[in-house]
Amino acid sequence: MADVLPSWNNTPTKQAILDFVATITDETSPNYVPPSERIATFDNDGTLWCEQPIPVQGFFLYDRIRQLAEQQPELRAQQPYKAVIESDWQTFATFGKKELLMLFFATHCDMTLEAFQAIAKSWLNSATHPRFGTLYLQCVYQPMLELMAYLRANRFKNFIVSGGGIEFIRAFAEAIYSIPPEQVIGSSGQLHLEIQENKPLLVKQPELKSFDDREEKVVNIALHIGRIPILAVGNSDGDLALLLHHDDAEREYAYDCNFTLSPLRDGLEKVPKMGGHIISMKQDFAQIFSD
Amino acid sequence: MADVLPSWNNTPTKQAILDFVATITDETSPNYVPPSERIATFDNDGTLWCEQPIPVQGFFLYDRIRQLAEQQPELRAQQPYKAVIESDWQTFATFGKKELLMLFFATHCDMTLEAFQAIAKSWLNSATHPRFGTLYLQCVYQPMLELMAYLRANRFKNFIVSGGGIEFIRAFAEAIYSIPPEQVIGSSGQLHLEIQENKPLLVKQPELKSFDDREEKVVNIALHIGRIPILAVGNSDGDLALLLHHDDAEREYAYDCNFTLSPLRDGLEKVPKMGGHIISMKQDFAQIFSD
Repeated sequence: MADVLPSWNNTPTKQAILDFVATITDETSPNYVPPSERIATFDNDGTLWCEQPIPVQGFFLYDRIRQLAEQQPELRAQQPYKAVIESDWQTFATFGKKELLMLFFATHCDMTLEAFQAIAKSWLNSATHPRFGTLYLQCVYQPMLELMAYLRANRFKNFIVSGGGIEFIRAFAEAIYSIPPEQVIGSSGQLHLEIQENKPLLVKQPELKSFDDREEKVVNIALHIGRIPILAVGNSDGDLALLLHHDDAEREYAYDCNFTLSPLRDGLEKVPKMGGHIISMKQDFAQIFSD
Repeated sequence: MADVLPSWNNTPTKQAILDFVATITDETSPNYVPPSERIATFDNDGTLWCEQPIPVQGFFLYDRIRQLAEQQPELRAQQPYKAVIESDWQTFATFGKKELLMLFFATHCDMTLEAFQAIAKSWLNSATHPRFGTLYLQCVYQPMLELMAYLRANRFKNFIVSGGGIEFIRAFAEAIYSIPPEQVIGSSGQLHLEIQENKPLLVKQPELKSFDDREEKVVNIALHIGRIPILAVGNSDGDLALLLHHDDAEREYAYDCNFTLSPLRDGLEKVPKMGGHIISMKQDFAQIFSD
């Protein structure tokens, strides 16, 4: 039989995934799950693609601020824009929620959904990772692509549940993960409907609607999906929980806490106690990035 | 070839549906639409099932208020509950948004999602329509079931986009429409995550999050689906718009405006001008309810 997860080493983690899928698709098993209930959720940053040295959306934001400053030179003298334009990370580190939202609103709002998607797609097709030198779109973990394809073949629906912006993720999720926009849940801002020449246009407003992190992820899973995932990768509310541990500084990065305020170090202790599994990038991944 | 829409009469409306699906699934057509973009949206009340003499969720609310009054007799003396308990529709007609929300919160909130779903399912499996004497679950339009099955067979994803409560619709949509919870968009309240004995519980809060009507439907389609539907039934923002006209008082009801504040009479004029079609229940439906 062909190996459905060739980029995973033959470790207990891989076996746990294969066993789980074999059980829940076995109609004679007491743990059988009908196809309509086979919901898997994946975090994005640091679970499906690289989030170091900062999450990709952060690089997008920086590049956009610098582009905006070319049209609006007055931004060069104003915080919080000044710090980004001058790469003054010491000042940047002092910024709180207010300043970060100002940066997000300036780069993500007051334009239509279509306009934002076009800007994001164009950036993603040219911007490259500072360490790997490839497009960010290529800093995707090959083992996770295989895991998602394996789940789809077993009639799972894969969802992304991320702290990242819902429209930013939708700009690439279908192309690189085969996850359609209706299966992407993320942070969102308010939208306003305007009718121009009989055509409805949705304009992104500089007002936060939902910051999809921690408890809010559970709330948004209920709102968008309406049932409990049976597999959760990168967080811990499913029947099978898998937490990716970045312990491979040589091939990617080694770190114990991430930027989305998620209690990753906490999870490394808790997930095994709750019957979940830690994926060790170093030991479990035979290959890291997609070709 | 078998008739895929046997409960539809052979009218121009049926032909328009068949032509539309034939065109967008034809890879040689300039109007070809790839499967992932085949999104259809359906209103629920008055589009998929009967909404007269009042929407089904209204009957649920009345029955629940009366049940609550058995445990909390003080409600019998307090408005807005008193009017419902006494069937005092004259007073009820004077109620505004505030009183209606009080009635919704009393019957739909301060309980877990699971508890609400259990209550709704139990009610739906016993409550009957005052005119037809059947379960509300049987007051579903057979032609619409056939249309949704026909679309699914052509690799559409069907979504409900309704002013009704998202959790109320999810309590029956999969069983009677084959629409899974993640393809239901509706009005929603705030949810609060509580951890009880290491188990996450979501508790419905007495606070409106989104009233999914009119402009808000477009906003919620963008949030939940993230792309524009190519077929919209019961509203008018798709490539093919179909508006169901209830003009059959003998077999169902005849009316030109409904309870969800939607400008139905307006639509009867506008939809044909925008290239859409009016479905006449009387002329287009050979059979109305499912067997």
